[in-house]
Amino acid sequence: MKYKIKFSYDGTNYSGYQKQPDKSTIQETLENALTTVLREQIEIVASGRTDAGVSAIEQVAHMIVETEINAQRTIGYVNTLLPEDIRINEIERVEEDFHARYSAKIKTYEYWFYIGKEKTPVFERMATHIGYDVDVEKMILATKYFIGEHDFGAFCASNTEVVNKVRTIYDLNIVNLGGKLYKMEITGNGFLYNMVRIIMGTLISVGIGKTPVEQVEKIINSKDRALAGKTMPSKGLYLKKVCY
Amino acid sequence: MKYKIKFSYDGTNYSGYQKQPDKSTIQETLENALTTVLREQIEIVASGRTDAGVSAIEQVAHMIVETEINAQRTIGYVNTLLPEDIRINEIERVEEDFHARYSAKIKTYEYWFYIGKEKTPVFERMATHIGYDVDVEKMILATKYFIGEHDFGAFCASNTEVVNKVRTIYDLNIVNLGGKLYKMEITGNGFLYNMVRIIMGTLISVGIGKTPVEQVEKIINSKDRALAGKTMPSKGLYLKKVCY
Repeated sequence: MKYKIKFSYDGTNYSGYQKQPDKSTIQETLENALTTVLREQIEIVASGRTDAGVSAIEQVAHMIVETEINAQRTIGYVNTLLPEDIRINEIERVEEDFHARYSAKIKTYEYWFYIGKEKTPVFERMATHIGYDVDVEKMILATKYFIGEHDFGAFCASNTEVVNKVRTIYDLNIVNLGGKLYKMEITGNGFLYNMVRIIMGTLISVGIGKTPVEQVEKIINSKDRALAGKTMPSKGLYLKKVCY
Repeated sequence: MKYKIKFSYDGTNYSGYQKQPDKSTIQETLENALTTVLREQIEIVASGRTDAGVSAIEQVAHMIVETEINAQRTIGYVNTLLPEDIRINEIERVEEDFHARYSAKIKTYEYWFYIGKEKTPVFERMATHIGYDVDVEKMILATKYFIGEHDFGAFCASNTEVVNKVRTIYDLNIVNLGGKLYKMEITGNGFLYNMVRIIMGTLISVGIGKTPVEQVEKIINSKDRALAGKTMPSKGLYLKKVCY
């Protein structure tokens, strides 16, 4: 039987989502707890990996279990075993053809940042600090170039092996969360490796006046990683939602 | 010479703002760093204390220093000495009659909370978890009763010695920060002990259907602490701004 699991985690203390030898990962921690509770070896397949330090407000995975399970009781038991920085929020029976990765249609990420000459310790818990003067209006003007279907070769870590870099961005907003705290929210049909962090770095480059707003269109068309902004830190990046 | 200091802190690891024997406090940590850098015994007077676990996005204090100081250099040195969870953001010369506490005219607090049957670890960093179904629309309807000048006796910790409990609330909003994360933002000319946390507890009581919306007006008029909601945890409470 196939089950869909919605779970959330604070990635701060893990070497990323994906299992690696001798490292503490979200996947392994979750599989161990599920294996203990369900008394069979559980492997989970997530919608995608998240890097070290990246957190998920809602991540989705699937697992195959030999016998039918009581979802609510399983959630309760597993959450008791899990460390406080990982929580299962939902377990739901799905059709056999459901695949957490291949069936995923839309993903939303958030990137939280705050602006200020000096740091604000409370915001350090959740957001990346931008220590320069930033013109957020300019950043908002630049967001429109990303919307739609593009080859995002300029916004992909150069060591990737993916060949097709065409992705569609449905929505990209910069939202003020009060005072100097902001989030960038981006929704698309898929994201290349480091794509959200490089888009964010390019928007910040526009905001601090290093990259002119109209230049962003040329950067996208160039497909040249060297022309885009730097890869922003993983802190502040959250996988928000996966839709099927 | 008198100086106004704007600073911010993550209160998680302190026994509150105010100095106490044998306890680690924001005030003492800040005074020690300023005393080291300015080479004279510095005492700071803040706009008000914050409880254990409460953080400040922007707190204000004043200090008297014998000799003129270079603000920018002092900020740099002091921030190097301070632990990462306290930061000075601004130092500015003020008139002799400025008093961080008595001159304060308006204060804004935020209370961050999120709704969900199970916890979301990322939100645990910054917000209080509400594990019940909450009707936020009802909470928003109830906010209007708090606006204006009232005797807030029902919203004050019972062990307080303050006699005059009349305060004016200028603004009270509940803002969705995306998904199940919200903040309540409240602005007034002053706040009684635990007032924000008790107002928040009362709004939550409305949201979960325990207290009818219209009942809130009666609770305010009763001045009876026993009729208001419970005092919400300090986590999620932020002093946002003090205006003079």
